[in-house]
Amino acid sequence: MAAERAVVLLSGGLDSATALAWARERGFECFALSVAYGQRHAAELDAAARVAQSLGVCEHRTMHVDLGSLGGSALTDTSIPVPEQGGAGIPITYVPARNTVLLSLALAWAEVLGAGHLVIGVNALDYSGYPDCRPEFIAAFQELARLATRAAVEGASLEIHAPLLQWSKAQIIREGRRLGVDYGLTVSCYQADAEGRACGRCDSCRLRRAGFASAKLADPTRYA
Amino acid sequence: MAAERAVVLLSGGLDSATALAWARERGFECFALSVAYGQRHAAELDAAARVAQSLGVCEHRTMHVDLGSLGGSALTDTSIPVPEQGGAGIPITYVPARNTVLLSLALAWAEVLGAGHLVIGVNALDYSGYPDCRPEFIAAFQELARLATRAAVEGASLEIHAPLLQWSKAQIIREGRRLGVDYGLTVSCYQADAEGRACGRCDSCRLRRAGFASAKLADPTRYA
Repeated sequence: MAAERAVVLLSGGLDSATALAWARERGFECFALSVAYGQRHAAELDAAARVAQSLGVCEHRTMHVDLGSLGGSALTDTSIPVPEQGGAGIPITYVPARNTVLLSLALAWAEVLGAGHLVIGVNALDYSGYPDCRPEFIAAFQELARLATRAAVEGASLEIHAPLLQWSKAQIIREGRRLGVDYGLTVSCYQADAEGRACGRCDSCRLRRAGFASAKLADPTRYA
Repeated sequence: MAAERAVVLLSGGLDSATALAWARERGFECFALSVAYGQRHAAELDAAARVAQSLGVCEHRTMHVDLGSLGGSALTDTSIPVPEQGGAGIPITYVPARNTVLLSLALAWAEVLGAGHLVIGVNALDYSGYPDCRPEFIAAFQELARLATRAAVEGASLEIHAPLLQWSKAQIIREGRRLGVDYGLTVSCYQADAEGRACGRCDSCRLRRAGFASAKLADPTRYA
Protein backbone atom coordinates (compact mmCIF):
# COMPACT_ATOMS: atom_id res chain seq x y z
CA MET A 1 0.00 0.00 0.00
CA ALA A 2 1.33 3.45 -0.87
CA ALA A 3 2.19 5.71 2.06
CA GLU A 4 -0.42 8.30 2.90
CA ARG A 5 0.55 11.88 2.21
CA ALA A 6 0.75 14.58 4.86
CA VAL A 7 1.36 18.30 4.58
CA VAL A 8 3.45 19.40 7.55
CA LEU A 9 3.71 23.07 8.53
CA LEU A 10 7.39 23.74 9.15
CA SER A 11 8.46 27.07 10.63
CA GLY A 12 12.05 26.16 11.37
CA GLY A 13 11.46 26.21 15.11
CA LEU A 14 11.75 23.42 17.63
CA ASP A 15 8.09 22.43 17.76
CA SER A 16 7.43 22.09 14.04
CA ALA A 17 10.68 20.14 13.52
CA THR A 18 9.44 17.68 16.13
CA ALA A 19 6.02 17.51 14.46
CA LEU A 20 7.73 16.66 11.16
CA ALA A 21 9.76 13.90 12.81
CA TRP A 22 6.55 12.58 14.38
CA ALA A 23 4.83 12.53 10.97
CA ARG A 24 7.75 10.72 9.42
CA GLU A 25 7.68 8.07 12.14
CA ARG A 26 3.95 7.65 11.55
CA GLY A 27 4.93 6.58 8.02
CA PHE A 28 3.48 9.55 6.19
CA GLU A 29 4.98 10.77 2.94
CA CYS A 30 5.78 14.29 4.13
CA PHE A 31 5.38 17.54 2.21
CA ALA A 32 6.77 20.40 4.29
CA LEU A 33 5.25 23.85 3.94
CA SER A 34 6.91 27.01 5.21
CA VAL A 35 5.24 30.38 4.95
CA ALA A 36 7.06 33.67 4.61
CA TYR A 37 4.46 35.93 6.21
CA GLY A 38 6.70 38.90 6.94
CA GLN A 39 8.25 37.56 10.14
CA ARG A 40 11.21 39.60 11.40
CA HIS A 41 13.01 36.39 12.27
CA ALA A 42 13.64 35.32 8.65
CA ALA A 43 16.46 33.08 9.92
CA GLU A 44 13.62 30.72 10.82
CA LEU A 45 12.97 30.10 7.12
CA ASP A 46 16.61 29.15 6.52
CA ALA A 47 16.31 26.81 9.47
CA ALA A 48 13.16 25.27 7.96
CA ALA A 49 15.09 24.38 4.82
CA ARG A 50 17.85 22.74 6.87
CA VAL A 51 15.35 20.78 8.96
CA ALA A 52 13.41 19.63 5.90
CA GLN A 53 16.61 18.38 4.31
CA SER A 54 17.89 16.74 7.47
CA LEU A 55 14.66 14.84 8.17
CA GLY A 56 13.99 13.95 4.54
CA VAL A 57 10.78 15.20 2.95
CA CYS A 58 9.28 14.58 -0.49
CA GLU A 59 9.16 18.30 -1.11
CA HIS A 60 9.71 21.51 0.83
CA ARG A 61 7.87 24.56 -0.36
CA THR A 62 7.80 28.14 0.87
CA MET A 63 4.73 30.25 0.16
CA HIS A 64 4.61 34.02 0.57
CA VAL A 65 1.79 36.03 2.09
CA ASP A 66 2.30 39.49 3.46
CA LEU A 67 0.64 39.42 6.87
CA GLY A 68 3.31 41.89 7.93
CA SER A 69 1.67 44.61 5.84
CA LEU A 70 -1.39 44.37 8.12
CA GLY A 71 0.71 45.20 11.19
CA GLY A 72 -0.38 44.55 14.75
CA SER A 73 2.44 42.27 15.89
CA ALA A 74 5.98 42.62 17.17
CA LEU A 75 6.92 39.59 15.06
CA THR A 76 6.21 41.40 11.80
CA ASP A 77 6.62 45.07 12.71
CA THR A 78 10.19 46.01 13.57
CA SER A 79 8.95 49.25 15.15
CA ILE A 80 7.34 47.22 17.97
CA PRO A 81 10.00 45.82 20.32
CA VAL A 82 9.92 42.11 21.18
CA PRO A 83 9.16 41.93 24.91
CA GLU A 84 11.83 40.27 27.02
CA GLN A 85 9.70 39.29 29.97
CA GLY A 86 6.33 37.59 30.10
CA GLY A 87 3.20 39.54 31.00
CA ALA A 88 -0.50 38.92 31.44
CA GLY A 89 -2.81 38.33 28.49
CA ILE A 90 -1.98 37.69 24.86
CA PRO A 91 1.50 39.06 24.07
CA ILE A 92 2.33 41.53 21.33
CA THR A 93 4.28 38.76 19.55
CA TYR A 94 0.92 37.21 18.59
CA VAL A 95 0.40 37.54 14.81
CA PRO A 96 -3.28 38.15 14.00
CA ALA A 97 -4.96 35.00 12.67
CA ARG A 98 -1.58 33.49 11.78
CA ASN A 99 -2.38 29.85 12.43
CA THR A 100 -5.69 30.17 10.59
CA VAL A 101 -3.84 31.49 7.55
CA LEU A 102 -1.09 28.84 7.81
CA LEU A 103 -3.60 26.00 8.10
CA SER A 104 -5.60 27.41 5.17
CA LEU A 105 -2.54 27.40 2.93
CA ALA A 106 -1.65 23.89 4.07
CA LEU A 107 -5.23 22.86 3.32
CA ALA A 108 -4.93 24.25 -0.22
CA TRP A 109 -1.73 22.31 -0.86
CA ALA A 110 -3.15 19.15 0.75
CA GLU A 111 -6.10 19.36 -1.60
CA VAL A 112 -3.87 19.64 -4.67
CA LEU A 113 -1.64 16.79 -3.48
CA GLY A 114 -4.52 14.56 -2.49
CA ALA A 115 -3.04 14.45 1.01
CA GLY A 116 -5.33 13.14 3.73
CA HIS A 117 -3.33 14.50 6.65
CA LEU A 118 -2.22 17.90 7.85
CA VAL A 119 0.27 18.26 10.69
CA ILE A 120 0.89 21.37 12.80
CA GLY A 121 3.25 21.67 15.77
CA VAL A 122 1.11 23.87 18.00
CA ASN A 123 1.38 23.39 21.71
CA ALA A 124 -1.02 24.54 24.40
CA LEU A 125 1.14 24.03 27.49
CA ASP A 126 4.55 25.69 27.33
CA TYR A 127 3.48 28.38 24.89
CA SER A 128 2.94 32.10 24.73
CA GLY A 129 -0.82 32.23 25.32
CA TYR A 130 -1.88 32.61 21.69
CA PRO A 131 -5.59 31.97 21.01
CA ASP A 132 -4.84 29.91 17.91
CA CYS A 133 -2.76 27.34 19.81
CA ARG A 134 -5.71 26.06 21.83
CA PRO A 135 -7.28 22.61 21.39
CA GLU A 136 -10.70 24.13 20.62
CA PHE A 137 -9.16 26.11 17.75
CA ILE A 138 -7.66 22.96 16.23
CA ALA A 139 -10.99 21.15 16.62
CA ALA A 140 -12.79 23.99 14.84
CA PHE A 141 -10.30 23.90 11.96
CA GLN A 142 -10.79 20.12 11.72
CA GLU A 143 -14.51 20.71 11.26
CA LEU A 144 -13.87 23.44 8.68
CA ALA A 145 -11.48 21.20 6.74
CA ARG A 146 -14.12 18.47 6.71
CA LEU A 147 -16.40 20.80 4.75
CA ALA A 148 -14.10 23.11 2.81
CA THR A 149 -12.62 21.06 0.02
CA ARG A 150 -13.34 19.11 -3.10
CA ALA A 151 -12.18 15.98 -1.29
CA ALA A 152 -14.72 16.63 1.46
CA VAL A 153 -17.57 16.74 -1.03
CA GLU A 154 -16.30 13.66 -2.81
CA GLY A 155 -16.04 11.68 0.43
CA ALA A 156 -12.31 11.76 1.21
CA SER A 157 -11.21 12.59 4.72
CA LEU A 158 -8.72 15.17 5.87
CA GLU A 159 -7.34 14.75 9.34
CA ILE A 160 -5.64 17.56 11.27
CA HIS A 161 -2.90 16.32 13.59
CA ALA A 162 -1.48 18.45 16.38
CA PRO A 163 0.64 15.81 18.13
CA LEU A 164 2.42 18.26 20.46
CA LEU A 165 -0.76 19.94 21.64
CA GLN A 166 -0.68 18.63 25.21
CA TRP A 167 3.04 18.02 25.64
CA SER A 168 5.36 20.06 27.83
CA LYS A 169 8.40 21.60 26.14
CA ALA A 170 10.57 19.00 27.89
CA GLN A 171 8.40 16.17 26.53
CA ILE A 172 8.63 17.66 23.04
CA ILE A 173 12.41 17.82 23.23
CA ARG A 174 12.80 14.30 24.61
CA GLU A 175 10.48 12.89 21.94
CA GLY A 176 12.25 14.85 19.19
CA ARG A 177 15.64 13.59 20.32
CA ARG A 178 14.35 10.02 20.25
CA LEU A 179 13.15 10.63 16.70
CA GLY A 180 16.51 12.01 15.61
CA VAL A 181 15.77 15.73 15.40
CA ASP A 182 18.93 17.84 15.41
CA TYR A 183 17.76 20.86 17.40
CA GLY A 184 20.97 22.65 16.54
CA LEU A 185 19.41 23.22 13.12
CA THR A 186 16.29 24.89 14.50
CA VAL A 187 15.71 28.54 15.38
CA SER A 188 13.03 29.50 17.90
CA CYS A 189 14.09 33.04 18.85
CA TYR A 190 11.65 35.86 17.98
CA GLN A 191 14.56 38.11 17.07
CA ALA A 192 17.34 35.81 15.90
CA ASP A 193 20.13 37.50 13.98
CA ALA A 194 20.80 36.83 10.30
CA GLU A 195 22.99 33.84 11.21
CA GLY A 196 20.19 32.35 13.28
CA ARG A 197 21.76 33.10 16.66
CA ALA A 198 19.22 33.50 19.45
CA CYS A 199 18.81 36.49 21.79
CA GLY A 200 18.31 34.27 24.83
CA ARG A 201 15.87 36.74 26.38
CA CYS A 202 12.54 36.68 24.48
CA ASP A 203 9.57 34.55 25.51
CA SER A 204 10.39 31.90 22.93
CA CYS A 205 14.04 31.67 24.01
CA ARG A 206 13.02 31.39 27.66
CA LEU A 207 10.55 28.56 26.97
CA ARG A 208 13.11 26.73 24.86
CA ARG A 209 15.95 27.07 27.34
CA ALA A 210 13.73 25.93 30.21
CA GLY A 211 12.62 22.96 28.10
CA PHE A 212 16.17 21.69 27.60
CA ALA A 213 16.92 22.22 31.29
CA SER A 214 13.79 20.38 32.35
CA ALA A 215 14.48 17.54 29.88
CA LYS A 216 18.03 17.35 31.29
CA LEU A 217 19.47 17.48 27.79
CA ALA A 218 22.27 19.66 26.44
CA ASP A 219 20.95 22.81 24.74
CA PRO A 220 22.51 23.13 21.26
CA THR A 221 21.06 26.64 20.72
CA ARG A 222 23.59 29.15 19.40
CA TYR A 223 23.20 32.39 21.34
CA ALA A 224 24.34 35.77 20.01
CA MET B 1 -22.14 55.81 18.33
CA ALA B 2 -19.26 55.11 15.95
CA ALA B 3 -20.09 52.87 12.99
CA GLU B 4 -19.02 49.26 13.36
CA ARG B 5 -16.23 48.14 11.08
CA ALA B 6 -16.55 45.39 8.52
CA VAL B 7 -13.96 43.75 6.30
CA VAL B 8 -15.59 42.96 2.95
CA LEU B 9 -14.00 40.51 0.52
CA LEU B 10 -14.12 42.17 -2.89
CA SER B 11 -13.15 40.17 -5.96
CA GLY B 12 -14.38 42.64 -8.56
CA GLY B 13 -17.21 40.36 -9.64
CA LEU B 14 -20.95 40.90 -9.46
CA ASP B 15 -21.58 39.06 -6.19
CA SER B 16 -18.93 40.70 -4.04
CA ALA B 17 -19.86 44.17 -5.34
CA THR B 18 -23.42 43.49 -4.18
CA ALA B 19 -22.16 42.24 -0.82
CA LEU B 20 -20.21 45.48 -0.38
CA ALA B 21 -23.29 47.58 -1.21
CA TRP B 22 -25.26 45.48 1.29
CA ALA B 23 -22.64 46.12 3.99
CA ARG B 24 -22.67 49.83 3.27
CA GLU B 25 -26.44 49.96 3.59
CA ARG B 26 -26.17 48.10 6.91
CA GLY B 27 -24.18 51.12 8.10
CA PHE B 28 -20.82 49.40 8.43
CA GLU B 29 -17.58 51.29 7.96
CA CYS B 30 -16.28 49.15 5.11
CA PHE B 31 -12.71 47.96 4.54
CA ALA B 32 -12.52 46.16 1.20
CA LEU B 33 -10.00 43.35 0.77
CA SER B 34 -9.01 41.95 -2.60
CA VAL B 35 -6.61 39.05 -2.92
CA ALA B 36 -4.28 38.48 -5.84
CA TYR B 37 -4.00 34.70 -5.61
CA GLY B 38 -2.72 34.02 -9.09
CA GLN B 39 -6.07 34.19 -10.88
CA ARG B 40 -5.80 34.27 -14.67
CA HIS B 41 -8.57 36.86 -14.79
CA ALA B 42 -6.47 39.70 -13.30
CA ALA B 43 -8.93 42.16 -14.86
CA GLU B 44 -11.08 41.27 -11.84
CA LEU B 45 -8.63 43.07 -9.57
CA ASP B 46 -8.84 46.26 -11.65
CA ALA B 47 -12.61 45.93 -11.40
CA ALA B 48 -12.35 45.58 -7.62
CA ALA B 49 -10.55 48.91 -7.40
CA ARG B 50 -13.25 50.59 -9.51
CA VAL B 51 -16.05 49.09 -7.45
CA ALA B 52 -14.39 50.06 -4.15
CA GLN B 53 -14.03 53.62 -5.35
CA SER B 54 -17.54 53.80 -6.76
CA LEU B 55 -19.23 52.50 -3.61
CA GLY B 56 -17.00 54.41 -1.21
CA VAL B 57 -14.90 52.42 1.27
CA CYS B 58 -12.63 53.54 4.10
CA GLU B 59 -9.77 51.61 2.57
CA HIS B 60 -9.22 49.13 -0.24
CA ARG B 61 -6.30 46.78 0.11
CA THR B 62 -4.96 44.04 -2.14
CA MET B 63 -2.99 41.21 -0.56
CA HIS B 64 -0.90 38.73 -2.51
CA VAL B 65 -0.72 34.99 -1.98
CA ASP B 66 0.43 32.63 -4.64
CA LEU B 67 -2.20 29.89 -4.69
CA GLY B 68 -1.49 29.63 -8.40
CA SER B 69 1.90 28.04 -7.68
CA LEU B 70 0.05 25.09 -6.12
CA GLY B 71 -1.83 24.40 -9.36
CA GLY B 72 -4.95 22.30 -9.62
CA SER B 73 -7.34 24.86 -11.09
CA ALA B 74 -8.18 26.27 -14.50
CA LEU B 75 -8.52 29.70 -12.84
CA THR B 76 -4.84 29.84 -11.92
CA ASP B 77 -3.21 27.51 -14.43
CA THR B 78 -3.34 28.81 -18.00
CA SER B 79 -2.45 25.35 -19.30
CA ILE B 80 -5.87 24.07 -18.16
CA PRO B 81 -8.64 25.41 -20.44
CA VAL B 82 -11.65 27.09 -18.86
CA PRO B 83 -14.62 24.83 -19.67
CA GLU B 84 -17.36 26.43 -21.73
CA GLN B 85 -20.19 24.15 -20.76
CA GLY B 86 -21.31 22.91 -17.37
CA GLY B 87 -20.68 19.32 -16.32
CA ALA B 88 -21.35 17.09 -13.33
CA GLY B 89 -19.40 17.46 -10.08
CA ILE B 90 -17.03 20.18 -8.95
CA PRO B 91 -15.65 21.98 -12.00
CA ILE B 92 -11.98 22.48 -12.80
CA THR B 93 -12.43 26.23 -12.19
CA TYR B 94 -12.61 25.45 -8.47
CA VAL B 95 -9.49 26.82 -6.73
CA PRO B 96 -8.39 24.52 -3.88
CA ALA B 97 -9.35 25.95 -0.47
CA ARG B 98 -9.71 29.44 -1.95
CA ASN B 99 -12.51 30.72 0.24
CA THR B 100 -10.83 29.33 3.35
CA VAL B 101 -7.68 31.27 2.46
CA LEU B 102 -9.65 34.45 1.58
CA LEU B 103 -11.62 34.34 4.82
CA SER B 104 -8.44 33.73 6.81
CA LEU B 105 -6.79 36.81 5.36
CA ALA B 106 -9.94 38.84 5.99
CA LEU B 107 -9.93 37.52 9.56
CA ALA B 108 -6.35 38.69 10.03
CA TRP B 109 -7.17 42.18 8.81
CA ALA B 110 -10.39 42.30 10.85
CA GLU B 111 -8.39 41.48 13.94
CA VAL B 112 -5.88 44.27 13.31
CA LEU B 113 -8.68 46.77 12.56
CA GLY B 114 -10.81 45.71 15.51
CA ALA B 115 -13.60 44.96 13.02
CA GLY B 116 -16.48 42.89 14.37
CA HIS B 117 -17.87 41.92 10.97
CA LEU B 118 -16.64 40.04 7.95
CA VAL B 119 -18.66 40.01 4.72
CA ILE B 120 -18.30 37.54 1.85
CA GLY B 121 -20.44 37.39 -1.29
CA VAL B 122 -20.69 33.63 -1.64
CA ASN B 123 -23.84 32.22 -3.10
CA ALA B 124 -25.13 28.67 -2.88
CA LEU B 125 -27.87 28.78 -5.53
CA ASP B 126 -26.73 30.07 -8.91
CA TYR B 127 -23.13 29.06 -8.46
CA SER B 128 -20.63 26.64 -9.86
CA GLY B 129 -20.90 23.86 -7.27
CA TYR B 130 -17.85 24.78 -5.21
CA PRO B 131 -17.66 23.13 -1.75
CA ASP B 132 -16.61 26.37 -0.08
CA CYS B 133 -19.76 28.22 -1.13
CA ARG B 134 -22.09 26.07 0.96
CA PRO B 135 -23.92 27.29 4.09
CA GLU B 136 -22.27 24.60 6.24
CA PHE B 137 -18.84 25.87 5.20
CA ILE B 138 -19.72 29.42 6.24
CA ALA B 139 -21.11 28.16 9.56
CA ALA B 140 -17.88 26.23 10.22
CA PHE B 141 -15.80 29.33 9.50
CA GLN B 142 -18.01 31.34 11.86
CA GLU B 143 -17.20 28.84 14.61
CA LEU B 144 -13.49 28.96 13.78
CA ALA B 145 -13.49 32.77 13.84
CA ARG B 146 -15.16 32.68 17.26
CA LEU B 147 -12.11 30.85 18.60
CA ALA B 148 -9.19 31.95 16.45
CA THR B 149 -8.39 35.49 17.44
CA ARG B 150 -7.24 37.74 20.23
CA ALA B 151 -10.65 39.39 20.20
CA ALA B 152 -12.30 36.02 20.72
CA VAL B 153 -10.26 35.36 23.84
CA GLU B 154 -10.88 38.86 25.14
CA GLY B 155 -14.65 38.57 24.64
CA ALA B 156 -15.27 40.49 21.43
CA SER B 157 -17.45 38.93 18.76
CA LEU B 158 -16.73 38.47 15.09
CA GLU B 159 -19.70 37.86 12.87
CA ILE B 160 -19.42 36.35 9.39
CA HIS B 161 -22.06 37.65 6.97
CA ALA B 162 -22.86 35.93 3.70
CA PRO B 163 -25.93 37.93 2.71
CA LEU B 164 -26.19 36.48 -0.81
CA LEU B 165 -25.96 32.88 0.32
CA GLN B 166 -29.53 31.90 -0.50
CA TRP B 167 -30.35 34.42 -3.22
CA SER B 168 -30.77 33.61 -6.89
CA LYS B 169 -28.56 35.50 -9.33
CA ALA B 170 -31.61 37.53 -10.37
CA GLN B 171 -32.32 38.49 -6.76
CA ILE B 172 -28.70 39.51 -6.28
CA ILE B 173 -28.83 41.75 -9.35
CA ARG B 174 -32.14 43.35 -8.42
CA GLU B 175 -30.95 44.03 -4.88
CA GLY B 176 -27.63 45.41 -6.13
CA ARG B 177 -29.39 47.74 -8.55
CA ARG B 178 -31.58 49.02 -5.74
CA LEU B 179 -28.41 49.68 -3.70
CA GLY B 180 -26.79 51.60 -6.54
CA VAL B 181 -24.24 49.06 -7.77
CA ASP B 182 -22.95 49.85 -11.26
CA TYR B 183 -22.54 46.34 -12.67
CA GLY B 184 -20.80 47.82 -15.70
CA LEU B 185 -17.76 48.20 -13.43
CA THR B 186 -17.69 44.52 -12.42
CA VAL B 187 -16.01 41.59 -14.17
CA SER B 188 -17.29 38.04 -13.60
CA CYS B 189 -15.77 36.20 -16.56
CA TYR B 190 -13.25 33.45 -15.76
CA GLN B 191 -11.16 34.46 -18.77
CA ALA B 192 -11.80 38.16 -19.28
CA ASP B 193 -9.30 39.93 -21.52
CA ALA B 194 -6.92 42.58 -20.22
CA GLU B 195 -9.59 45.27 -20.77
CA GLY B 196 -12.08 43.29 -18.68
CA ARG B 197 -14.22 42.18 -21.62
CA ALA B 198 -16.06 38.92 -20.98
CA CYS B 199 -15.93 35.74 -23.08
CA GLY B 200 -19.69 35.17 -22.78
CA ARG B 201 -19.21 31.39 -22.78
CA CYS B 202 -17.74 30.25 -19.44
CA ASP B 203 -19.82 29.08 -16.50
CA SER B 204 -19.56 32.43 -14.75
CA CYS B 205 -20.60 34.36 -17.87
CA ARG B 206 -23.57 32.04 -18.40
CA LEU B 207 -24.79 32.44 -14.81
CA ARG B 208 -24.39 36.21 -15.01
CA ARG B 209 -26.14 36.58 -18.34
CA ALA B 210 -29.04 34.37 -17.20
CA GLY B 211 -29.30 36.46 -14.03
CA PHE B 212 -29.80 39.72 -15.91
CA ALA B 213 -32.30 38.03 -18.22
CA SER B 214 -34.24 36.58 -15.32
CA ALA B 215 -34.16 39.91 -13.43
CA LYS B 216 -35.44 41.58 -16.62
CA LEU B 217 -32.70 44.19 -16.41
CA ALA B 218 -30.34 45.40 -19.11
CA ASP B 219 -26.99 43.58 -19.00
CA PRO B 220 -24.13 46.13 -18.99
CA THR B 221 -21.47 43.45 -19.45
CA ARG B 222 -18.88 44.26 -22.11
CA TYR B 223 -18.31 41.17 -24.24
CA ALA B 224 -15.14 40.61 -26.25
